[in-house]
Amino acid sequence: MIREMTKSDFEAFWPCFETVIQAQETYAFDPKMSFEEAYELWCIMPMKTFVFEENQQILGSYYIKPNAMGPGNHVCNCGYMVTEAARGKGIAKRLCEHSQDQAMTLGFEAMQFNAVVSSNEVAVQLWQKLGFKIIGTIPRAYRHGKLGHVDSYIMYKALRA
Amino acid sequence: MIREMTKSDFEAFWPCFETVIQAQETYAFDPKMSFEEAYELWCIMPMKTFVFEENQQILGSYYIKPNAMGPGNHVCNCGYMVTEAARGKGIAKRLCEHSQDQAMTLGFEAMQFNAVVSSNEVAVQLWQKLGFKIIGTIPRAYRHGKLGHVDSYIMYKALRA
Repeated sequence: MIREMTKSDFEAFWPCFETVIQAQETYAFDPKMSFEEAYELWCIMPMKTFVFEENQQILGSYYIKPNAMGPGNHVCNCGYMVTEAARGKGIAKRLCEHSQDQAMTLGFEAMQFNAVVSSNEVAVQLWQKLGFKIIGTIPRAYRHGKLGHVDSYIMYKALRA
Repeated sequence: MIREMTKSDFEAFWPCFETVIQAQETYAFDPKMSFEEAYELWCIMPMKTFVFEENQQILGSYYIKPNAMGPGNHVCNCGYMVTEAARGKGIAKRLCEHSQDQAMTLGFEAMQFNAVVSSNEVAVQLWQKLGFKIIGTIPRAYRHGKLGHVDSYIMYKALRA
């Protein structure tokens, strides 16, 4: 089930979130970020935040927000996270499909990811399968925890209501 | 002279800033933004903000900030604005050169512009002349006040200390 995230959901999700940012392999978030900072970033600043819940467990989450302000606010941005134990089960795919529906409901015309770490092949391939295109490569934009500086991709998909 | 911007500088610069955002031709900022919101965005959220001053008049300004957090915080982002009356005098060029020096002083390895409106040919050509490359095109990412939906460019330059 996908539904909106509450603060207590985020509390349950925080160990996963912390593991993800500390690994420094996928997100350009401060690896030492506090719970409150993370909650602000993931749940307060975005327009909406959802969870994927199964058997009363939070297995994944995503946020949706405008990628720019004013004359750029018809393009949205999303971020997705799935707990380690729940990977490979198609949850990211379901979250991304849900986010595209949400985006259209909210009136967005396109979706943009600003920094998909190029070494995160599972994500890059999934987004491509879901219709996103790499529209730009930022050289050495991400300091990967294991690989050092790697490129980031900008990915984009036009949406139709 | 280029020096750090104070709040009273921003007060003096605000009519220019307001004209620029209301035109909706260059910045993805809310055209109805208040003075305080604009001050927050231009002077508080960035790392540093500078003005170009001549004969006690503020003719232009720029900010510098990390373009991403954590493992992405070695790439910076800047925004530049020049008052209408002072355009065509090389002020944007001097601000951009100053910002590249600042970026290196602050330890940044590269500079990225996330949304250069493609119809803003003067800016695109100036950034190219200063060594920035178009590394991506976001289709129809900007609702131009006169032209409707136009593409935005992502521009990038690696910096050497």
